[in-house]
Amino acid sequence: MAKDFATREEDYSKWYNDLVMKADLAENSAVRGCMVIKPYGFSIWESMQQELDRKFKATGHTNAYFPLFIPKSFFAKEANHVEGFAKECAVVTHYRLKNGEQGGIEVDEDARLEEELIVRPTSETIIWNTYRNWIQSYRDLPILVNQWANVVRWEMRTRLFLRTAEFLWQEGHTAHASKEEAIAEAEQMMNVYADFAENFLAIPVWKGTKSANERFAGAVETYCIEALMQDGKALQAGTSHFLGQNFAKAFDVKFTGQDGKQDYVWATSWGVSTRLMGALIMTHSDDNGLVLPPNLAPFKVVIVPIYRKEEEYRLVCEKAREIKEELEAKGISVKLDDRDTHKPGWKFAEYEFKGVPVRIGLGPRDIENGTLEVARRDTLTKESVSREGIVEHVESLLSEIQKNLFQKAFKHREEKTTKVSSWDEFKDVLENKGGFILAHWDGTPETEDKIKEETKATIRLIPLENEYKTVGKCVYSGKDSNQIVVFAKAY
Amino acid sequence: MAKDFATREEDYSKWYNDLVMKADLAENSAVRGCMVIKPYGFSIWESMQQELDRKFKATGHTNAYFPLFIPKSFFAKEANHVEGFAKECAVVTHYRLKNGEQGGIEVDEDARLEEELIVRPTSETIIWNTYRNWIQSYRDLPILVNQWANVVRWEMRTRLFLRTAEFLWQEGHTAHASKEEAIAEAEQMMNVYADFAENFLAIPVWKGTKSANERFAGAVETYCIEALMQDGKALQAGTSHFLGQNFAKAFDVKFTGQDGKQDYVWATSWGVSTRLMGALIMTHSDDNGLVLPPNLAPFKVVIVPIYRKEEEYRLVCEKAREIKEELEAKGISVKLDDRDTHKPGWKFAEYEFKGVPVRIGLGPRDIENGTLEVARRDTLTKESVSREGIVEHVESLLSEIQKNLFQKAFKHREEKTTKVSSWDEFKDVLENKGGFILAHWDGTPETEDKIKEETKATIRLIPLENEYKTVGKCVYSGKDSNQIVVFAKAY
Repeated sequence: MAKDFATREEDYSKWYNDLVMKADLAENSAVRGCMVIKPYGFSIWESMQQELDRKFKATGHTNAYFPLFIPKSFFAKEANHVEGFAKECAVVTHYRLKNGEQGGIEVDEDARLEEELIVRPTSETIIWNTYRNWIQSYRDLPILVNQWANVVRWEMRTRLFLRTAEFLWQEGHTAHASKEEAIAEAEQMMNVYADFAENFLAIPVWKGTKSANERFAGAVETYCIEALMQDGKALQAGTSHFLGQNFAKAFDVKFTGQDGKQDYVWATSWGVSTRLMGALIMTHSDDNGLVLPPNLAPFKVVIVPIYRKEEEYRLVCEKAREIKEELEAKGISVKLDDRDTHKPGWKFAEYEFKGVPVRIGLGPRDIENGTLEVARRDTLTKESVSREGIVEHVESLLSEIQKNLFQKAFKHREEKTTKVSSWDEFKDVLENKGGFILAHWDGTPETEDKIKEETKATIRLIPLENEYKTVGKCVYSGKDSNQIVVFAKAY
Repeated sequence: MAKDFATREEDYSKWYNDLVMKADLAENSAVRGCMVIKPYGFSIWESMQQELDRKFKATGHTNAYFPLFIPKSFFAKEANHVEGFAKECAVVTHYRLKNGEQGGIEVDEDARLEEELIVRPTSETIIWNTYRNWIQSYRDLPILVNQWANVVRWEMRTRLFLRTAEFLWQEGHTAHASKEEAIAEAEQMMNVYADFAENFLAIPVWKGTKSANERFAGAVETYCIEALMQDGKALQAGTSHFLGQNFAKAFDVKFTGQDGKQDYVWATSWGVSTRLMGALIMTHSDDNGLVLPPNLAPFKVVIVPIYRKEEEYRLVCEKAREIKEELEAKGISVKLDDRDTHKPGWKFAEYEFKGVPVRIGLGPRDIENGTLEVARRDTLTKESVSREGIVEHVESLLSEIQKNLFQKAFKHREEKTTKVSSWDEFKDVLENKGGFILAHWDGTPETEDKIKEETKATIRLIPLENEYKTVGKCVYSGKDSNQIVVFAKAY
């Protein structure tokens, strides 16, 4: 399997694509830019969904569902929003097909919609149009709703998981009686995302806000989490927006406060998507394939029976089943691959490539000796472990692997984070080292644009911590700056 | 709340719509025929999803995800399939909007798709086009995949949950090496659905196959479960299709068997949708609102504190929290409504209308007496129960309610199932009693069509049991018949 698999060194982009396809995560479909998420890939996404959903509910949110289609006129109501999304909208114009005159099937021109419908690229407009009827007074607030859905943005250059015309995501849409409460909600969800990324996906992230250029179309402030990939490029892993009263004004959503006065409602929205699959892959995987953090892995342990003769097969499988049951009794998900159609060596390669955190090999000699062969995916090392204490061993090993993956990624990020003080240094680091670059910025979109034009680097985030709010000179313009920001080339 | 709520007797259709909206289950959206599923309604759908997903996985299936869009030409490949769906397809023709010359926003005619894309009404075509690359030999079979997704069928007359332009569903798509295995799969999934409907939703269903007229477009055989609503109309609650080799042939999906010979792959597909929400409502609910079977209810118990003074409030809420914790320790989901903004009477009405199976009222006098007031939603009765044994009491009460709802629905169906032997009797029963009608049928689509024209009744299913495979005379044509089938008017 690994034979025709590029290394990261040889061709990082090919390595990524090969891995996604050969590890059965996803593939391109017959529809331009739309992917098929294959069963193994989807089971990883389901792990993410479950954990996120649990976190959303623990913070008081409930799920709901809003239409896939948005009337075209809704988009026009929030000026920045339409500006941001108009160029990548899939548009439904007809509602019927008919048999063509020369055979085949064609669009029925008699079934043209009066108003075109946009396949949702995001749901602020249809949701705020709905909220208008849900909200009369402060008693109806807050509304804390999330939606799991597919969305469509007609991207011209697509890559599996990272940028696809259709993708899966969740979008939270909340409504509040005060500005402070809405800001607190947006910040809370950024923190929920960061906690999820670091403790579940083992991806270290930097929290901050976006510059005006990079802000969500229609937002007053965009909070984000940013991760660093192994090739030194940044990846935006989640965003949470404080929308102010923009959508409430566009859709005329007012409420009567405790003081009897009417005001527009305050809003947030926040989302993460199947893009996280790309972040996961590019943070941990290696030239031997996918590497999964145990907290996320669809099965944390795979047991592979090793045998030559028929009677060995039965005995070994019986012992393997015992181990499986013991592990499962502790809540550890285990796959026992007792297929007789594939050799152990083939299975070893398969599960290594698919990133299963721990592999247990078990043969007749192991049974005699009272031992097992335990291999860990993150370090590719293996050791002989006593059969007796296998459950405790695996438990502590899984937690060690989870920790190790985070540490490794954290170390990588630290190594690839450079503070620069001159424009030459900026360009040199960006070209020769990559990663996050910390630099003073004069706060103007013009400077940001010029840096982007010259280097393709963008401001990934403005850090929240006070230590970055220092006085200095802009790395590009030399003008006064009161903020160090984080630059990088990004996915 | 119940004031402007129609009774079933007065106006069944209005009763249904009012209930759906006032119990916060769903509402119509700004997009014709598309609904908004509100948080409470969605949490019921989530209960259904979780239980179904568990059952699918327990029978060896995994989830995956396929594109929302299907190239128009794919539909043309299976003749019956396109015939069945062409008239209700939402068609994407453009991928960009632009600013109009007179202001506003319009479709960019320069961004017309080369081939139109259909928003999936069902995914057989895109999935079988994908399976072609997944299947080479018998070793790649079976493929047992399910997808949770939204689908669009442009219905002209829509009703919340029952018939909407967009709805949510799951669609299983399996591929097999033999006809027998595929048929066994299709039958298995019909049984999974029936088990789910009866034991989880407490809806008695009849299992059977569809006549050729009512078969899924592209299927060789359609298995179904049919339920009977309180107004005597039938509702198709789930279908499972044996697709033969139709889609394998249309998309050229062949495999090499163990014998080295090539053959087309055998297929099934099966699905249930948010339509089940309609079945649930119309099976159990009454003139006081929604009634939920405990197995399904987002929370099975609601606790309402009763108090007048501030110091009572604290004490009562403290005791209520203790009860909540005890019940939750037994895995029973509980909502404690300790809001100080609403009176107990208002809360009683609210939870009655929303169908919460058990309500516990708790006031200072109850605490003195060591009792609680326990009300059950299905019978609308209440009793005083000792505080001591409340957990055991609630546990057995929930299981009794679950059983009672099924029994009640079962009894209703039995009462409304009539065997007829003449055409006059058929019409009389259909008009004056409604329900399922058992009658001999000559097996021809012509007779079926005529019965439908004259009475609007259709063949809901052909029962599987041998007792219905008897010789007789067709109730309409008088011709020989060897099968009693089930007729009804249907949703």
